[in-house]
Amino acid sequence: MNKTLKKRMDCLFNPESIAVIGASNVPGKWGFNTYVQILGTSLGKRKIFPVNNKTEEVLGQKAYPSIRDIPEPVDFAVIIVPYQHVPPVMQDCVAHGVKSALVITAGLGEVGEEGKKVEKEVVRIAQQGGIRFVGPNCMGHFDTTSGFYTTGWGQPLKQGSLSLVAQSGGFTGHLMQCGMDMGVGFNKLVSSGNEADLHTEDYLEYYAQDHSTKVIGAYVEGFREGERFLKLARETSKKKPLVIMKVGRTPTGSMAAMSHTGALSGTDAVCDAALKQSGVIRADEIEELFDISGALLRQPLPRGNRVGILTGGGGHGVVTTDACERLGLQLAKLAPETIDKIDTFLPPRWSKKNPVDLVGTTQFVTYQCLWPIIEDDNVDSIIVVGCIGLSAMFKVFRDRLSSQIEPFLQTMPDSVKQQAEVAMQGMDVMEEEELKNIDIMLDYMDRYQKPIIIIGLMATHEAKHTPVFKKLEDNGILWYPTPERAAKVVGHLVQYSRHIRDSN
Amino acid sequence: MNKTLKKRMDCLFNPESIAVIGASNVPGKWGFNTYVQILGTSLGKRKIFPVNNKTEEVLGQKAYPSIRDIPEPVDFAVIIVPYQHVPPVMQDCVAHGVKSALVITAGLGEVGEEGKKVEKEVVRIAQQGGIRFVGPNCMGHFDTTSGFYTTGWGQPLKQGSLSLVAQSGGFTGHLMQCGMDMGVGFNKLVSSGNEADLHTEDYLEYYAQDHSTKVIGAYVEGFREGERFLKLARETSKKKPLVIMKVGRTPTGSMAAMSHTGALSGTDAVCDAALKQSGVIRADEIEELFDISGALLRQPLPRGNRVGILTGGGGHGVVTTDACERLGLQLAKLAPETIDKIDTFLPPRWSKKNPVDLVGTTQFVTYQCLWPIIEDDNVDSIIVVGCIGLSAMFKVFRDRLSSQIEPFLQTMPDSVKQQAEVAMQGMDVMEEEELKNIDIMLDYMDRYQKPIIIIGLMATHEAKHTPVFKKLEDNGILWYPTPERAAKVVGHLVQYSRHIRDSN
Repeated sequence: MNKTLKKRMDCLFNPESIAVIGASNVPGKWGFNTYVQILGTSLGKRKIFPVNNKTEEVLGQKAYPSIRDIPEPVDFAVIIVPYQHVPPVMQDCVAHGVKSALVITAGLGEVGEEGKKVEKEVVRIAQQGGIRFVGPNCMGHFDTTSGFYTTGWGQPLKQGSLSLVAQSGGFTGHLMQCGMDMGVGFNKLVSSGNEADLHTEDYLEYYAQDHSTKVIGAYVEGFREGERFLKLARETSKKKPLVIMKVGRTPTGSMAAMSHTGALSGTDAVCDAALKQSGVIRADEIEELFDISGALLRQPLPRGNRVGILTGGGGHGVVTTDACERLGLQLAKLAPETIDKIDTFLPPRWSKKNPVDLVGTTQFVTYQCLWPIIEDDNVDSIIVVGCIGLSAMFKVFRDRLSSQIEPFLQTMPDSVKQQAEVAMQGMDVMEEEELKNIDIMLDYMDRYQKPIIIIGLMATHEAKHTPVFKKLEDNGILWYPTPERAAKVVGHLVQYSRHIRDSN
Repeated sequence: MNKTLKKRMDCLFNPESIAVIGASNVPGKWGFNTYVQILGTSLGKRKIFPVNNKTEEVLGQKAYPSIRDIPEPVDFAVIIVPYQHVPPVMQDCVAHGVKSALVITAGLGEVGEEGKKVEKEVVRIAQQGGIRFVGPNCMGHFDTTSGFYTTGWGQPLKQGSLSLVAQSGGFTGHLMQCGMDMGVGFNKLVSSGNEADLHTEDYLEYYAQDHSTKVIGAYVEGFREGERFLKLARETSKKKPLVIMKVGRTPTGSMAAMSHTGALSGTDAVCDAALKQSGVIRADEIEELFDISGALLRQPLPRGNRVGILTGGGGHGVVTTDACERLGLQLAKLAPETIDKIDTFLPPRWSKKNPVDLVGTTQFVTYQCLWPIIEDDNVDSIIVVGCIGLSAMFKVFRDRLSSQIEPFLQTMPDSVKQQAEVAMQGMDVMEEEELKNIDIMLDYMDRYQKPIIIIGLMATHEAKHTPVFKKLEDNGILWYPTPERAAKVVGHLVQYSRHIRDSN
């Protein structure tokens, strides 16, 4: 990318010194929340200067009436002042040698004629002064690698390789929450607001060349530079996946988008075709965006569309089959030797075909049945439904059951009490076994280069904190709540894999 | 319904005395888990007799070698013995005057020729002896009204008015977990297994006449009595909603269903049309089943398809608009007086139309803007996105922020500390305000007979335990995680409302 732009954006994600213009002592105000966040994450690493002409100090730091009064150079400015003051403040920034800025202030281009005029003036000043800026009308940004946060939110996020841009402040918060809930690691995120200066396309180009970003995601209401975007997408998608939630699909939705950030969203059918041709993975919902991004961060790309299903319950086998077929995925025909191998672990009543239903076996044979499916040449991807993490769930049930058994156990002979104790301990052994099996599974996944998509039915919040689920999360393996969501992930992986093969 | 069948099913859901044939002292076995569950929920209310010919006692209760040896009458039997022993055990039940039974044992009709033969024999014996039974190959059942549980799971469930039948053991557990997670109250649930004797149709007919059941739900792989089902559905859906997740939509899915419980599932398109004509609400996913069932339990039915949207973020307004339009819902055109009323609470930059975007106002004006939308004659349903429950979320953020502010606050003058304290307390006031507003909202909902569907973005698990979310849950108001799921609920309510009007 253009060298000057790259320098400006490097500064955006990792500045040396920051002026917070509009920093406030009043809790609840944007100028307070943002300033607290910057102090909390950058103090000791970067120089921070609050700018406020009505007070001497902001949260214990000396305040300056204007950025011009700061006795040192400042490369990055955060602007949180009433909209009519943004142009003179931007002028001050230019005068003080600022390279990049973030304008949080709302009420500019997205509102009426006056707001548009003011916004144009801000752009003119910044361009003349060589400043590139995010916003206005946005929620801030962050970079977990450099440890810089301007989003007014006090949660340290899991570090990872997914970088995002969102043309909506509300969605910025929603993306952060959703990623946290699903255990996906973030790299960078920008709430791009009205995109008066820096566009979605700029962030995407930056992420494309950024080594710490492996997967790029975006929430888009409209493209400001459609042609540039498609060219970028074509180039980028050969190397890194681009997952885009493009909204405004319906005519009324497009109108709503226009009054939101002023983005023009075009006919959806045209847009959809163009995105597909450029290798973009299109997500319909925010959860889908994380479902597929999370998978792309860790899972291998499948060679074809043949899916092997291993299920703890027959009903879930049916629903998973339905979901796969609806998406054009093929149910793999298992090789006879695969059937034979599985046959040694399951009772005779199992169906002897894909989906492999564990028919309610009380022994824990999930992994013994999983290995032959992975090894089978007829299988490209594997979906495992409701039988990984069982040891964790059994322990949760055990604890519930224990309190029920207790009163009866009191009245029992010692032999029964001992038996109960052994059975209860058996679940700890089962958990240790499963932890080992997960290591083997990860190894299998990489060796055979086949994605293994896990549906964690009944994975309660208690279960989430058990060692098995923690181990999966630490290794970047997501678990999906429904067969439909898991099948969609496989569908996207298959399509992207095909795109990579065809375009390289 | 038929009087004898009704009596048998009354006994199934609320027996006086229970024999557990195959009750076991060995933790982990079905005969142990089920027996513990029955003891835990029925001891003191019902007579419980363990039957086991290898031990003197089961969990402190005297065991009988056969049901014939029990010196008192028994009206309900739970059978958990190896499959080949089921026919003689059923014969014993007949001899002892049992009225209804539950056969948990697997390996019968769903397996091979031999299993089918044994199952037929069991049916013959039961029919001759006047016993009606659930199963075989199932997970048990429960009734929260009578307090009777045979599902091997130690969780007390929230009592409510939703009754279910599931043709899959795995889905039975999944339904229970999903309902618990979403805060939906259960009435009855049967895991119907192979349906050798009692069919899905029998349970539905029973629920239709059951006063404690307000909404009926079912997971169906195939109908054994298609004609009877459709007749039942037509009659029932005029009075109570019937929400059905019918799987086996694709050819391969149907085959998987056949090898699971032996159900024949027919062509999906035919099935879909028949269900629709009979007033059935068809859910595609398990979450959708609870989304709409939960709404039907509490929300009024809308008069038309015009939706008013109130949103905390513009992006979410766009996505919600898209989701509504895709489902054929209409975005309501707000009356001029509605716009005027809202105008007094929002800054001039708001769009002055539906969706009503609160444009990031820091004052808490959600409810002031909600009332005029409910009052508007052009609005039939309301979707509220990400702005109800804000006080709860702010408190969560406050606690996160507090720990960040703490070190800076130490260095500050007292006046700032006091200011911070007031701001923090302000959130408690906000919460109290919101609790009052929720009461008013429930009142509005009932007075205007308009559903209010809440999307709880960023509603973290911490937020779920706050008074605001508890109050919503206690009043049967669900909150939905995505605009798409909320829009689907409105779509179903509109269709069902139309069906009720057309058919009555």
